[in-house]
This record gives sequence, C-alpha cells and structure tokens, in this order.
Amino acid sequence: MTKQDELKQLVGQEAVKFIKDGMIVGLGTGSTVKFMVDALGKRVADEQLSIVGVPTSQRTKEQATRLGIPVKDLDEVDHIDLTIDGADQIDKNFQGIKGGGAAHLWEKIVAINSTKNIWIVDKTKMVDQLGSFPLPLEVIPYGSHQLFQRLANRGFNPVFRMKDGHHVLTDSNNYIIDLHLHQIQDPQGLAFTLNQMTGIVEHGLFLNIVNTVIVGEENGPKVLQAR
Amino acid sequence: MTKQDELKQLVGQEAVKFIKDGMIVGLGTGSTVKFMVDALGKRVADEQLSIVGVPTSQRTKEQATRLGIPVKDLDEVDHIDLTIDGADQIDKNFQGIKGGGAAHLWEKIVAINSTKNIWIVDKTKMVDQLGSFPLPLEVIPYGSHQLFQRLANRGFNPVFRMKDGHHVLTDSNNYIIDLHLHQIQDPQGLAFTLNQMTGIVEHGLFLNIVNTVIVGEENGPKVLQAR
Repeated sequence: MTKQDELKQLVGQEAVKFIKDGMIVGLGTGSTVKFMVDALGKRVADEQLSIVGVPTSQRTKEQATRLGIPVKDLDEVDHIDLTIDGADQIDKNFQGIKGGGAAHLWEKIVAINSTKNIWIVDKTKMVDQLGSFPLPLEVIPYGSHQLFQRLANRGFNPVFRMKDGHHVLTDSNNYIIDLHLHQIQDPQGLAFTLNQMTGIVEHGLFLNIVNTVIVGEENGPKVLQAR
Repeated sequence: MTKQDELKQLVGQEAVKFIKDGMIVGLGTGSTVKFMVDALGKRVADEQLSIVGVPTSQRTKEQATRLGIPVKDLDEVDHIDLTIDGADQIDKNFQGIKGGGAAHLWEKIVAINSTKNIWIVDKTKMVDQLGSFPLPLEVIPYGSHQLFQRLANRGFNPVFRMKDGHHVLTDSNNYIIDLHLHQIQDPQGLAFTLNQMTGIVEHGLFLNIVNTVIVGEENGPKVLQAR
C-alpha cells in the first residue's frame, strides 16, 4: 500500500467511528470512501452493528453488499442520519466542490437528506479559495449547446466532459459541463446564478452542507468541525 | 369539429401569420398548437415557405414531419426567431404556467433561446392570478419521495402525476410533481424558491417570457401585446 493509501485508510477508519448502532448511513463514492466502506464492513462484521447503508453509486452499492452491509435505496428510507463522502475541493469556510466523478447530483440529493455530513479527503483538497478544480454542472442534453454558449458568453470557460469521443453520461443520463473558473470569489452568488439557469440540473457547489471534515495528514487524520 | 376546436383552429391560423419566410420557428406542444402546426403545414405546402421548425416534443416532431415541415433539433440551430406555444394559465401581467402536457422543460429551453414568443390559448386560460391550475415540476426520480415530503412540509400540496399506476415520464425520463397551490401571490418569489431546491429540474412558471398572446374568443382571435 502506498503512503497516500495508508493515509486514506486511516481517514476511513476515523470516519466510521462516527457511525453508531441503528443509524441509516449515506455512503459516498471515491477512493477515500472505498477505504471507509471497508472499515465499515469490518465494524458490521466484528460488532454485529445494525446499520443501513444508502449508497450514492452503483460502485459503492456493490462494495457494501459484498462486505455484508445492508443497503437500501434513498426512496426506501425516510431519513439519513449521517452521510460520509469525499470532496474535490474544500475552502477555508468549508464550502465544497464535488462532481469530479460525475455523481454530484445524486450525492447532493443524499447530502441534503442527511442530518449530518462528513467529508473525508486528503490534504491536497483543502484550499483557501475554490475554483482551481473545475466546477462540474450536470446539464440536460436537450439544448446543451445553447447553454454552453450562454455559459461561454458569461466568461465561465465551459468544457463538455467527454470520454472516447462521447459525452460522459451521469446516472440520470445527463451531460457534464466543467467550468474552468480558476477562482470562485463568491460561491453563494455563483450558485444563485447557476440555479436560475434553465438546463442546468445541478451544479457541484456544496454550500453550508458539511458538518465535519476529516483530512489525511502525515501525522494522522485531522478532524475539523465546520458547523 | 366542436365550437371550441373551431376557435382553437382560428387561433392557430392567426398565429402562423406571424411566421415569415426564412424563419427558424419553435413549435410548442398541446391541443391549440396542433391546429397551428396544421396551419403551418398548409402554408409550407401552399406558399413553398422555407422555414425550419424546432419541435419541443416527440409528438410535435412527428406531426411536423408528417406535414412536410423541415425540422431540426435545437442543437442544430444557432438561434430561434419565433416560438409559438400554448400555455395552461396566463395572468394579467402575462406571466404563465406551462407543463400540463409534461413538456415544460424542453418548452422553456426553446422559449429562452427564442427572440420572440407567442402563446396561443383559449380564453379559459386567461386569469387574474395564477395557481388554480396546478404548477408542474419536472423532478429527478432519484430521491423524489424525499423531495415530495419537503414540498408537502412547505404546504405546496404536491401530487405525483401518475398514469395507469405508473409515474408519468417526461422526454428526459424524469417524473412530474404537480403543486396544487390554488393561488400564487408572488410568482417571482416562488420561482426563486423552487430554483434553489435540489432535485427539481424545472418548474412550470414562465415569467417575463411571452411577447404576444393570441386568445380564442367567440368573435375571433384576439391579439394581446405583452411586452
């Protein structure tokens, strides 16, 4: 295991300490989350922990099922106690960007239905100001070239996310446009603007959502209380 | 033909007078629009009118193609000169509700990309205040029961639109939730609130969009200038 993976594993193990018997737990997606789900599987097996996992992707669902973690779909539960997920960038006010994996719509839906949210990241994700990571938008394919032009006219530097010459499709069969903004001075204002634009299903700004951030540092996981 | 259909037909015929040779024309969806597309097909055949239609639904696309009207997808044109569409309700300030036919997402995308918009309606659609017609929301199926609950908690009286025991699906494979609001005091404020809610792809409020409304009256179509 690489040094970086070791740090991610420690973060994952730290995160599952927040999970209590009987909880309904949102399970995110990503490389750090994978270690967290491993650690959760171990706790379920060792402690006969009675929890339900609500995965945000097919990948996480398969991993959880393989490890004996009972899973339910979001529509099968009436609430989520705690969601543990990754993030692509977190600023000093604990505002985040997600969507590098094209899953931010479902991740946001799970997050806003969760009483508490924990993000687990390596320390490269912590920044003063958001924006050096491109901001993902999930967009309706119909009319997306007009939307692209409108975004370009605003100076948002849009780029369609492609793979092998085809549009990357989300789990809801939409396209992704990444905005190469370099710096986001006013995340709230930008979120407001994007929310008003027809054709954008959801942007990757996760504002005032996370409660606790666990960062992988060389001397062990660091737990930060956001709000 | 019923008296009501006759009035709709006259409105449709009046509307196509606004279409000039060479225009790119957005084609809406609905019972009055159907008569308009018929009338347009006749003009294209009789006058060798060279226009391109941009349909907002599969239904309209099929009708237009059958009538020999050349059609293009929205992404194949760089602008739309004029869109002619119906509306479910129009208030005295010319704000509208659309989506009774579950097509308001594509209709709104076409409308905002159009230089001018004409709505064609029968006079029962003209009201002082919006809201007696339920407000349609196109919503992401994932997490839609949680969204439904959130809308209910706000007192919005949501109802999933069903057919034969199944969710009605839009052309983008989303669900429809109708809000039975009875009266909408502040359309702008409501639009703002709904735009901020994750899981709502688009609401049926069409604000500050229409330029001209053509109303079917007993003594002939009445043309109203909105803005």
